[in-house]
Amino acid sequence: MTGTATTRRPAVLGAPGAEGASATVAMVGAGQLARMTQQAAIALGVRLRVLAAGPGEPAVAAGAQCVLGDPADLECLRELAQGAEVLTLDHERVPPEHLHALERDGVALEPCAAAALFGQDKLHARRELSRRGFPVPEFAHARSREEVASFAAAHGWPLIAKAPRGGYDGRGVWTLAGPADAHELLTALPDGLLVEPELRIECELAVLLARSRSGECVCYEPVQTLQRDAMCREIIAPARVDARVAADARELATALAAEIDATGVLAVELFLTDSGLRVNELALRPHNSGHYTIEGCATSQFEQHLRAVLGWPLGAPTLLAPAVVTVNVLGAAAQPAVSSRADPRSCLRRALGVPGAHVHLYGKEPRPGRKLGHVTVCAGELQGALHAARLAAALLEGRES
Amino acid sequence: MTGTATTRRPAVLGAPGAEGASATVAMVGAGQLARMTQQAAIALGVRLRVLAAGPGEPAVAAGAQCVLGDPADLECLRELAQGAEVLTLDHERVPPEHLHALERDGVALEPCAAAALFGQDKLHARRELSRRGFPVPEFAHARSREEVASFAAAHGWPLIAKAPRGGYDGRGVWTLAGPADAHELLTALPDGLLVEPELRIECELAVLLARSRSGECVCYEPVQTLQRDAMCREIIAPARVDARVAADARELATALAAEIDATGVLAVELFLTDSGLRVNELALRPHNSGHYTIEGCATSQFEQHLRAVLGWPLGAPTLLAPAVVTVNVLGAAAQPAVSSRADPRSCLRRALGVPGAHVHLYGKEPRPGRKLGHVTVCAGELQGALHAARLAAALLEGRES
Repeated sequence: MTGTATTRRPAVLGAPGAEGASATVAMVGAGQLARMTQQAAIALGVRLRVLAAGPGEPAVAAGAQCVLGDPADLECLRELAQGAEVLTLDHERVPPEHLHALERDGVALEPCAAAALFGQDKLHARRELSRRGFPVPEFAHARSREEVASFAAAHGWPLIAKAPRGGYDGRGVWTLAGPADAHELLTALPDGLLVEPELRIECELAVLLARSRSGECVCYEPVQTLQRDAMCREIIAPARVDARVAADARELATALAAEIDATGVLAVELFLTDSGLRVNELALRPHNSGHYTIEGCATSQFEQHLRAVLGWPLGAPTLLAPAVVTVNVLGAAAQPAVSSRADPRSCLRRALGVPGAHVHLYGKEPRPGRKLGHVTVCAGELQGALHAARLAAALLEGRES
Repeated sequence: MTGTATTRRPAVLGAPGAEGASATVAMVGAGQLARMTQQAAIALGVRLRVLAAGPGEPAVAAGAQCVLGDPADLECLRELAQGAEVLTLDHERVPPEHLHALERDGVALEPCAAAALFGQDKLHARRELSRRGFPVPEFAHARSREEVASFAAAHGWPLIAKAPRGGYDGRGVWTLAGPADAHELLTALPDGLLVEPELRIECELAVLLARSRSGECVCYEPVQTLQRDAMCREIIAPARVDARVAADARELATALAAEIDATGVLAVELFLTDSGLRVNELALRPHNSGHYTIEGCATSQFEQHLRAVLGWPLGAPTLLAPAVVTVNVLGAAAQPAVSSRADPRSCLRRALGVPGAHVHLYGKEPRPGRKLGHVTVCAGELQGALHAARLAAALLEGRES
C-alpha cells in the first residue's frame, strides 16, 4: 500500500491569476467528480486544486489547478494540501495510513481519515456498522476455502464476494457459484474476501447527504439506482417506494452520517429487501447517484460538497421536479474499428436534439464500459423522463441515430 | 481604432490535454460572461478559448484556454480564431473592420460582422432599426451645439446623450440639462452624440433570444430590468407586464433577430412607454439580464449561446419557477481603508446562509461600482425572491452583516 514516486512536477499547474481572497480546496483525484466540482467552484469563486496523473484528466481539462502525482505517494498529497483550506477526496485510492499522516501534519481533512475508511474498506464498514447496530447484510471475512464453505453452508450458494478494498463500478465484485470459484479468487486476493449471500432485493436505493464539521446536515430524497453488469446505469429521483421506506432510509442515513462523523457529501447505498433496508456501501464524496442534483435539486451535490468541507452553510436539498432521471453514458462494449460513433462527443448534436436532455460529457477518451458522461431529464412524470434520458444516452453511445 | 500590439504570448495557455474530439469555441473577452460560458462548456465537453488581457481575468481563472492580447489587434484575433470551430464575442470592443477582415479570412464569426455592429454602434442600430420599421425612441446624430439645440427645440430639455460606441454599465450615457452640457461633451466626443428625449418609461424590459445560422430561434420570457445610476441592478423574471405586452415584446425581438441575422444569444433591451414598446439597445452576446437563466430556465443563456454558435439544436427556454430574481453584486462605492468587507469573497459565508440564494462570484478584484457577482433566487412568489436576493447581495457588498 505504500506509494512509489511517479512523474511529478514541483509547481502547481494551471489557473494562474491572483484570487487572493479566494478559498482553495484541494481534492485527491481529477475524474468527473472533480470536474463537476470545478464547475461549482467557479460559481463560488473557490479555487479547486486537484491531484492528477496527467494533464488530460477530466478536471484538469476543465481548468482546475493541478498537482501531477500519485495518490499513493504521501509527498504528492502533502504538496497538494499545501496552502489549501481543506483536503478532500474524489476517490477511495489514498492509502488510509497516508490520511492519518496528513492529519498528524495538521491538514484539515474532510472527511477525516477514520470516516474515509468507511468508503475505502468494505469489510471495515460492514464490521463497524454492524457493531454499532446499523442493518447490514449477513457477511463474513473469508480468508480460506474453508471459511467460504462455512459461510455457504449457512447461507447457500451462490455467494457474492467482494474485494474489501479497491473495487468500483462492478470491478472487485464476483458471484461465486461454488467452491471452485472461491479457490481461484482467494489465490488472487490472499487478504481475503468479504462474502455475503445473494440477497433477494426489491430495489437498490441511495441516500445522499451533506454534513459539516459543525454537525449541520442536509439529506436529499432517496433515489432508486438501476444496475446493469454490476454498474449503476440509471438513477430515478425520487425513488418509487413507500413514504415510510423513504423516511426510514433518510433517518438511517442521517444517523449513520453522524455516527461515523462523515463530513462533505456522503452517499449511502441501500438494499431494500423483504426484511427491510440493509446498508450496502458508503461513498464519502460526491457520488454517481447524485448527479441528478445538478439540474434536479435546489443545490447540486458538488456545490454542497464545497459548502460542507469549507464549513459554509449548507443549501436546500429540495427536489425541483416530480421526476428526475439520470442515465450514464458508457463507452461502447465493442469498439467499431476507427469509428467516431464510439465517441459521445461526435454524437452530441443528435443528443441535444432530445427535448429536455441535459448532457454532461467528461472529456474522457472512450474505452469499453468507461463512464464517459451522463444525461439528466427533469419532467412532470417518470415515463417521459426515462424515455428522453435513455434516448439521449443511447444516441451518445452510438446505439441510436 | 486600429490596434497596437501589447504583451503577447505565441502559445495558447492553459487547459492542456488531448480532447481531440472536442469542439473549440473562441471568444473575444475573458470577463464574467466568458467565465460562465466556461462552466457551460465543461458540461458539453466543449473547449473554450478566450482572448484576455492577463491571466487573472475571470474566465482564465476559471480555466478557459487563453490567448493573451488586445481585442483591437487583428493578429491577436487571428491567433485566437486559429483552429477554432467558431469565433464569438463577450464584449463590443473589437473594431468592426477587424470583424470584416476575419470574415474575409474565412473565420466562422457568430454573430457575423454586420450583425455585431448593431451591438457595437448605437447610432447604427437606431438608424437601421428605424429604417427597417422597428419602433425606436426619437433620436438624432448631433455633431455640433446647433444640432443638439435643434433636437432640444423639438423635444425639450433635458436630453439623453450617448456615445455611439464604447459605452457600458452607465458609462457613455449622460443627461444634458442645457446647451452648456452639450458643449463640454462634444469637445470630448468630436464624432458626435446620439441624442434622444428623456422618455417617460413605465419600465425597462429585456428579451433574450438565441438564434442559429440555420434560422432556428428560441425566445425567453421578457424580464424586467431595474436600473440604478444607469446600471442594471435587478432582474425580475418574468416581467410584471400584461400578457399582451409580453407577447408583443417577444414578437418584436424575434422579428428583429431574423431581420439583422443575429446568431448566438441576443438581448433586446426595450423601453415600455405610454405609447408602446421602443427598442433601446441590443447586445449580441450573453447578457446581464439573462444570468437568471442559469437556475431559472431549462437551458441557461451560456449553454444556449454555445449551442447556437456551434449550430447545435437549441434548448428549451422554459422558466422553471413563478418568480426568479437576480440582483447584481457591485464593488462598494466608498472603499473602507483595508477592509475585507469590501470583497464579496470575504462575505460569502453569510450570503450562503440566505435560504435559496444562488451566489455567483466572478473572481474580480473589488473596485467601486464594478460588477463582482450576482445572486439569483427562484421562488413561488416575487416578494420572497426579491427579499432573499437583495439580502444576499447586500451581505456580499458588506452592507449587511
